[in-house]
Amino acid sequence: MIISDTVDYDIHRVENSILEESSDCIAIEEPLEIAIRYFKDGEWIVDPLMVTMRTPGDDNALVSGLLFSEGIIQDKDAIDTIDVKGENKGKYDVDNSLIVTLAKGNQLDLKNLQRHFMVNSSCGVCGKGTLNAIEIAYEPNIDKAGPIVNIDLITELPDILRARQEQFANTGGVHASALLTESGKVLHLAEDVGRHNALDKLIGHVRCNDMLKPLEQFVMCSGRLGFDIIQKAVMSRIGMIVGIGAPTSLALDLAKKFDITLIGFIKKNKYNIYTGAWRIS
Amino acid sequence: MIISDTVDYDIHRVENSILEESSDCIAIEEPLEIAIRYFKDGEWIVDPLMVTMRTPGDDNALVSGLLFSEGIIQDKDAIDTIDVKGENKGKYDVDNSLIVTLAKGNQLDLKNLQRHFMVNSSCGVCGKGTLNAIEIAYEPNIDKAGPIVNIDLITELPDILRARQEQFANTGGVHASALLTESGKVLHLAEDVGRHNALDKLIGHVRCNDMLKPLEQFVMCSGRLGFDIIQKAVMSRIGMIVGIGAPTSLALDLAKKFDITLIGFIKKNKYNIYTGAWRIS
Repeated sequence: MIISDTVDYDIHRVENSILEESSDCIAIEEPLEIAIRYFKDGEWIVDPLMVTMRTPGDDNALVSGLLFSEGIIQDKDAIDTIDVKGENKGKYDVDNSLIVTLAKGNQLDLKNLQRHFMVNSSCGVCGKGTLNAIEIAYEPNIDKAGPIVNIDLITELPDILRARQEQFANTGGVHASALLTESGKVLHLAEDVGRHNALDKLIGHVRCNDMLKPLEQFVMCSGRLGFDIIQKAVMSRIGMIVGIGAPTSLALDLAKKFDITLIGFIKKNKYNIYTGAWRIS
Repeated sequence: MIISDTVDYDIHRVENSILEESSDCIAIEEPLEIAIRYFKDGEWIVDPLMVTMRTPGDDNALVSGLLFSEGIIQDKDAIDTIDVKGENKGKYDVDNSLIVTLAKGNQLDLKNLQRHFMVNSSCGVCGKGTLNAIEIAYEPNIDKAGPIVNIDLITELPDILRARQEQFANTGGVHASALLTESGKVLHLAEDVGRHNALDKLIGHVRCNDMLKPLEQFVMCSGRLGFDIIQKAVMSRIGMIVGIGAPTSLALDLAKKFDITLIGFIKKNKYNIYTGAWRIS
């Protein structure tokens, strides 16, 4: 079975101030549901382990690596089989659900893992709860309201952001998210070692201080644009996200669905408009 | 209260093939425990929400942003107070535990969130379960066994990695992890939209195929070096991690504690050795 790990999208590109239609190869991001089957007290038990966002392909390696990394197994022989559950095909016809059967004698100690797996929700989550919450929060942008940004402002944004990143200047290892006006003025900037935290810090600050006016503003993020970034934008009705890096397929799909303008891959004299080119003038 | 978000470490630097002692400013990464207090059926209930790795400072903004992003609140007035619990001081004398009291009328629907928070364990986890598992897996490297790498190989590694990154070449948006011999030969490379997934894919592949020989090999990762990366290295007894980006404080502490050589911030003619300079010859 060949599993594709990239997909082509129709996008717009801007180069030397000229906007034109183009296409781009995007890395696929899809959720993978992992369940563990193990023998305990005379019966086979199946427990859901986790859902993780990943690029399809090499799923067996990913799952066994995860089990090693989480201390669930210490030896490859602890895995009996890894089977596709086949109930959960992704958009790209990828199997997104696996069940790992542990060899007899290996069990899943959920008590020890519970605290562990209750933890990092803020990065790339994909549960039904999230998607439901997004659907509820969503209001279609029928009249195409929102910020309009000059075509030449985008390539200046990395420098604008960099100039305000105090922690990055010191460490070279911190992400940032900023809220900007249509004309490129930074209203607030937040930094964190985590991409998703930087955006949450920004959203928390601007919403708690009544600074967020999505119809006149946009958000700029350092780093790559994953599903989690767009999810956070939707929940706060932010209509335009500019990133320095590239988006994933799921980020792009979500941005398209919720009328979010998504711009990225910014270089000195060019950038990509993945969705919503009507916001560039 | 002033919260520091960076900390200075003694490190080694290599520039133009010369190794010398130096110091570096590192971004702090620490876990933040978040609990939610809310009024339901005539009584106040406190539920743990999550633990997230973050850079301290701006914690109130981070937590309120998270609550917005996860759909737990829709309005800032839903938050009554955010209080430091004060039971969980971090290494850098930072409060690492907060309790958010929701205004009456706002509740936490754990049922809807449960699936959601059961999810992304593979990135930056920090539960007691993980730390226990790491302690159990650890064997002190008393006789300093492990790979010795030539001082000039490190600056060549980004190009060596890049040449093997098929997905990155196509999309520009994918992380990679590779297992290399002491002399720089790539034994296996895995790619994914997630840093942590790329490393798990690598670990799963090489451990399931009996390719991992930590005493003669090292691992190279694209991107930043967070706590999660070093955790995975410890669990597989990988003794040397080279990254293109910078590490966090917690990654550096963990590497130091478990005798892992940590190298990063690789530029054309220089790089930083954060721990374990004895592995560079």
